[in-house]
Amino acid sequence: MNIRAIPPTIFAIALSAVSVTAADAWANPNLEELAGELAALKAEVTTLRQEAQAATDYVAIANLQASYGYYVDKMRWDEAADLFTKTATLEIAGRGVFAGQDRIRTYLHALGELTYGTLFNHMQLQPVIHIGNDGVTASARWRTLMQVGHLGEEARWGEGTYENEYVKEDGIWKINKLHSYITFYVEYDKGWNKGAVPLPKHLDNLEPDAEATVKYGAFPDVFVPPYHYKNPVTGQ
Amino acid sequence: MNIRAIPPTIFAIALSAVSVTAADAWANPNLEELAGELAALKAEVTTLRQEAQAATDYVAIANLQASYGYYVDKMRWDEAADLFTKTATLEIAGRGVFAGQDRIRTYLHALGELTYGTLFNHMQLQPVIHIGNDGVTASARWRTLMQVGHLGEEARWGEGTYENEYVKEDGIWKINKLHSYITFYVEYDKGWNKGAVPLPKHLDNLEPDAEATVKYGAFPDVFVPPYHYKNPVTGQ
Amino acid sequence: MNIRAIPPTIFAIALSAVSVTAADAWANPNLEELAGELAALKAEVTTLRQEAQAATDYVAIANLQASYGYYVDKMRWDEAADLFTKTATLEIAGRGVFAGQDRIRTYLHALGELTYGTLFNHMQLQPVIHIGNDGVTASARWRTLMQVGHLGEEARWGEGTYENEYVKEDGIWKINKLHSYITFYVEYDKGWNKGAVPLPKHLDNLEPDAEATVKYGAFPDVFVPPYHYKNPVTGQ
Repeated sequence: MNIRAIPPTIFAIALSAVSVTAADAWANPNLEELAGELAALKAEVTTLRQEAQAATDYVAIANLQASYGYYVDKMRWDEAADLFTKTATLEIAGRGVFAGQDRIRTYLHALGELTYGTLFNHMQLQPVIHIGNDGVTASARWRTLMQVGHLGEEARWGEGTYENEYVKEDGIWKINKLHSYITFYVEYDKGWNKGAVPLPKHLDNLEPDAEATVKYGAFPDVFVPPYHYKNPVTGQ
Repeated sequence: MNIRAIPPTIFAIALSAVSVTAADAWANPNLEELAGELAALKAEVTTLRQEAQAATDYVAIANLQASYGYYVDKMRWDEAADLFTKTATLEIAGRGVFAGQDRIRTYLHALGELTYGTLFNHMQLQPVIHIGNDGVTASARWRTLMQVGHLGEEARWGEGTYENEYVKEDGIWKINKLHSYITFYVEYDKGWNKGAVPLPKHLDNLEPDAEATVKYGAFPDVFVPPYHYKNPVTGQ
Repeated sequence: MNIRAIPPTIFAIALSAVSVTAADAWANPNLEELAGELAALKAEVTTLRQEAQAATDYVAIANLQASYGYYVDKMRWDEAADLFTKTATLEIAGRGVFAGQDRIRTYLHALGELTYGTLFNHMQLQPVIHIGNDGVTASARWRTLMQVGHLGEEARWGEGTYENEYVKEDGIWKINKLHSYITFYVEYDKGWNKGAVPLPKHLDNLEPDAEATVKYGAFPDVFVPPYHYKNPVTGQ
């Protein structure tokens, strides 16, 4: 093709077309649109990532606390203690505060061993779990229904509310604070209209690191364990 | 550079190259591919959004109903009533239907106050939760294990099945219908082989807005509360 | 416009500009960037898909096992049997192994019918659910709290641990293995300090396909049902 053979106007139109096309490619509506759509999608995926992560965290924490319960049932104390952070605290009934995983382990072992005739069920029920906005802290309310006792000795029903805290360390959720408030503790033979077993106090064989942070009585006293969350509808 | 100095063929090749390049940019396989991939990804993210939203809704509803239970345990009636929509209905045992949040609040307060010696535990257990395709309605079956009574008076075990409905208003899940069918209600001292407490009827101090929608008897009668869902495997 | 009228240098600059623009579009940093961002986003969405899918699967399995419990409560045996795969196994207490959905159905029907005065509650509680990396298998530990008996005859509390397996067939989760270890089984009138009902043995009216895979005693014996999972924190 000889450029001189191109009629000037046609050449100009062709050049113009090329220019427009190239300009379109530079500021191409498709490319710009794509970039815009991609940015919007990235933002949406970021939101989704948080939602999916929160759902994953919910499952992890539900599994964690349920696992704690299954270990406690069978007095697998080392397994249970391993679920806590090194700096965790544990406070159950009126037995005071045990600070740090080592002390929590000591406390748990002080509860005894699973031997013939022992029943020590601590069902972990009714979770209200909230993942923190930081994605590495969480709080949960749970309750435990307890069936405890020993053949030829006592048999008791008990119930308690947990307000627990969790942290995610190196991608793994751990219990950072376990606080169990006893609601009732009664003799199996009596039920809850003929008196109750008092709130358990200090263990005979182990003093706590600090006294109980909240003073309250179990049934027949009534007490509302504090909620870590606001009313889910009113936010108050 | 003088255009006249460009050998025509070279110029033509250059122009052709420019044209091809620009045309490629316009109908560039990469750009088209990208656009196609982006469209596919957008579709996938839409599906993911629904899945993640459903998981988030599941958690919200589980937390909501569990919160309801913790409020009921402690007779925090205003907190509990606030969890319902303005037009919700509540029907428990044989006490009839209470329609609207105000009447639900009145009903709940009519159940009494938490005083020394009262036990009123209503554990919220075993959810089967389905989020509607519209994303703003949901249904759930739950059960409650009840430990109720008063020191020096009665002590009772009870159990019931809920078939509840929820709606999402302004991004917040609320209870729109609560229907509790009592399975059994027995004196602690007797258990469930020596008779049972009859299905609770109208409150002494409050008439319902409508009679019970379903007539049934609690243990020793047997009754299968209707399921809001089909068999999860057969779909029937 | 007459090309001959374009001053040569300006034309050359224009052509050069067009060439650069077109070349940029071909190897345009924006396009390349977009492609890179899209690839990264696709990878992230793939991860999200797995997370969202796992959350969806968690909900499906929780609903499935809870549904099983509601059917068992009311002795809806066909509904319950339909939740199993064709090749599933079922093993409860000391009654041996039943292999295949048909035999599971036969076993369930052999447990009797829901008639006036029957209580057969099997609450499904405290799940620890793990979805396999393949996305089509899962394992879960659950526990059941049982309230069983018959008016004028026996009344019993019982508790057991399940270690179950699930598979996803054609997009639907089903129970592939149900293994229930009884923890305790006691007369309501006695509680758990005056002896216990022995671990249920073979049904009177139905021999199993194989003997129990695990020999153990219920309370007052103590036994730790094997865990399908490692310690969630230590991984051991």
